Amino acid sequence: MRDTALRLPSRQAKPRSRGLTMVIDNGLPTSYFRDAVSSSTELIDLVKFGWGTALVTADLDQKIETLRSLGIGYFFGGTLFEKHVLQRRFDDYRAFCHDYGCSHVEVSNGTIELPNPEKDDYISRLADDFTVLSEVGFKDGERSERLSPSRWVEYIRADLDAGADLVITEARESGRSGICRPDGRLRFGLIEDILEAGLPTDQLLFEAPTKELQTYFVRRVGTDVNLGNIAPTEVIALETLRLGLRSDTLLDIEATIDGGRRA
Amino acid sequence: MRDTALRLPSRQAKPRSRGLTMVIDNGLPTSYFRDAVSSSTELIDLVKFGWGTALVTADLDQKIETLRSLGIGYFFGGTLFEKHVLQRRFDDYRAFCHDYGCSHVEVSNGTIELPNPEKDDYISRLADDFTVLSEVGFKDGERSERLSPSRWVEYIRADLDAGADLVITEARESGRSGICRPDGRLRFGLIEDILEAGLPTDQLLFEAPTKELQTYFVRRVGTDVNLGNIAPTEVIALETLRLGLRSDTLLDIEATIDGGRRA
Amino acid sequence: MRDTALRLPSRQAKPRSRGLTMVIDNGLPTSYFRDAVSSSTELIDLVKFGWGTALVTADLDQKIETLRSLGIGYFFGGTLFEKHVLQRRFDDYRAFCHDYGCSHVEVSNGTIELPNPEKDDYISRLADDFTVLSEVGFKDGERSERLSPSRWVEYIRADLDAGADLVITEARESGRSGICRPDGRLRFGLIEDILEAGLPTDQLLFEAPTKELQTYFVRRVGTDVNLGNIAPTEVIALETLRLGLRSDTLLDIEATIDGGRRA
Repeated sequence: MRDTALRLPSRQAKPRSRGLTMVIDNGLPTSYFRDAVSSSTELIDLVKFGWGTALVTADLDQKIETLRSLGIGYFFGGTLFEKHVLQRRFDDYRAFCHDYGCSHVEVSNGTIELPNPEKDDYISRLADDFTVLSEVGFKDGERSERLSPSRWVEYIRADLDAGADLVITEARESGRSGICRPDGRLRFGLIEDILEAGLPTDQLLFEAPTKELQTYFVRRVGTDVNLGNIAPTEVIALETLRLGLRSDTLLDIEATIDGGRRA
Repeated sequence: MRDTALRLPSRQAKPRSRGLTMVIDNGLPTSYFRDAVSSSTELIDLVKFGWGTALVTADLDQKIETLRSLGIGYFFGGTLFEKHVLQRRFDDYRAFCHDYGCSHVEVSNGTIELPNPEKDDYISRLADDFTVLSEVGFKDGERSERLSPSRWVEYIRADLDAGADLVITEARESGRSGICRPDGRLRFGLIEDILEAGLPTDQLLFEAPTKELQTYFVRRVGTDVNLGNIAPTEVIALETLRLGLRSDTLLDIEATIDGGRRA
Repeated sequence: MRDTALRLPSRQAKPRSRGLTMVIDNGLPTSYFRDAVSSSTELIDLVKFGWGTALVTADLDQKIETLRSLGIGYFFGGTLFEKHVLQRRFDDYRAFCHDYGCSHVEVSNGTIELPNPEKDDYISRLADDFTVLSEVGFKDGERSERLSPSRWVEYIRADLDAGADLVITEARESGRSGICRPDGRLRFGLIEDILEAGLPTDQLLFEAPTKELQTYFVRRVGTDVNLGNIAPTEVIALETLRLGLRSDTLLDIEATIDGGRRA
């Protein structure tokens, strides 16, 4: 944060307990990846190597070494976990995450048929060795749309009870499933139900790959909402939304700053 | 421009008085930014650090040093000006622009309530120290849609009279407000009114972040239209549209080249 | 491909006769281009310098030198061929491709009026010196929509007979013309007709710039479908679709792997 005469919302320094930004790497070129995470290290809390990209990334070791040297946590996408479970290779997956020095691991059932109790069992087993991020919601837009808000809340609570540190609400990298409808619109009612269920907001992380979703969550939850699936090129832009330095949130954030003074 | 047997429209060398390409940096990684502007230096006339990104860009000094060494002008987005005006920090903003060696400054009222006469007063005050780019149009799509063509022309003229060197017509980085409708379609009638109002075309710069908008303006105004909010990755693509080297404008530009010969 | 406990489809090593990935460069910055192609060399079979971008790329020599050193083939977009034909400069175009050491050349009639017999004559003439890729389909969405499936098949067959090594089906870089409708939906019936016409599938290359198109072709044709107009940033993501490591194709590919075992 540059010196400025402006009054802006305050932000925790890293390591943060809220206002997390989780970046997704969909398969960036190696030098570009290094450039992206080192240009905005203070703004990036976690990096996800999206779905199974880790397996076809020739320079995965170099990318991981970069993150380690910068002190940024990382994990592999939940789809890679699911693929291993589907082929009955869970122990290999755990070993794979250990081999690459992951501090975090993601557990999901967005693609395969994995009943929630079994999913929660995996969360418990992994929670001994890793910080577990679980994900709620399906990759398939129509299947997700049939998941009622009360189920979402129930599943989030169960994942937290099983030992998940953070629960991610699915939106994919496109913003077209999970908490979004197939046409990209947010399921506003669902978000309200999740936010008003008495869950610990700092343990929720909303996938928000588009500016529209990011804007909505910053306006609704505030500067310190946890957001994920942020494109590496959008990290700075997201921070301006959090701080009210972009048109979309400027007046909303201004109101929260002035709240005390004007009241 | 590579040696070629093709007949192509001629273009001014830099510094140009028309056919300007203004690039927007939405928060690119540092090395990538340097790469982008140095790969196509001859095609880039100006760089805007979009909205308030300058304040959260850790390597802003390096980016600016790169632009200076390449002789490319730069300025901060109008939203940063507006944020300072809103917090009654205009003098700090002027000092901020001076501190970073800006040759240009943008004055806008796209987000905050700033009556046009006051905006024009800021233009006059800044015109002593900077080349002033003013912007007409609102960031909010619906508010922009209610701004009639005659008002647009009136505001453009007033900004020029107040001392603006270039007047930018708003389209945001999304192409979904200002001269565009919220669904992304261009307001064709508005553009016709602006182009036929007898304004100095070389002092108008149209924000055109999408290929569709760029194509429209090159076809309608010609190779040498001034265009802005061009993504750094689209600079070469835009130049091919200007020269008729891409399908979308190929036959149109061909017709202008052959005009003299075939007539 | 990283060591993994997972069962995945096998892929040919380079040089491949099927499962080709053709990347399009729309004008990337020079270092980024080098980074992109060297990070995933094993996954990239061919690079196209889109339409006429080669003429306005200051560092074209450096880009080509990079591809040569990595053993990746390259060619210029068909639009550059058409522009030369339109200006009666075909011999200059052939010389241009020779000067830049192209192994491949693309012949198309997507923009200019070039009757198919004449196009096939160009294919024959170029086939002596180059590996010829021909393209079927028009850039203009509506014109393409009026081209019937039987005509598509007829044109593809004629191009192969004339000496084309690969025939590309047009989709542009936007996925909104050729084999796609102007609204972006694929012409499913057209694709079925092409696939069921008894043409040599390994000599067909489908332009598939979006994840939706890539997913469709991997599901319909299989891991080893030839795909083109892949963005440099999407090379790794496409490979995960081919291998069933992304949600969109995970269960489909899993079924093909297990086919033998479970049967």
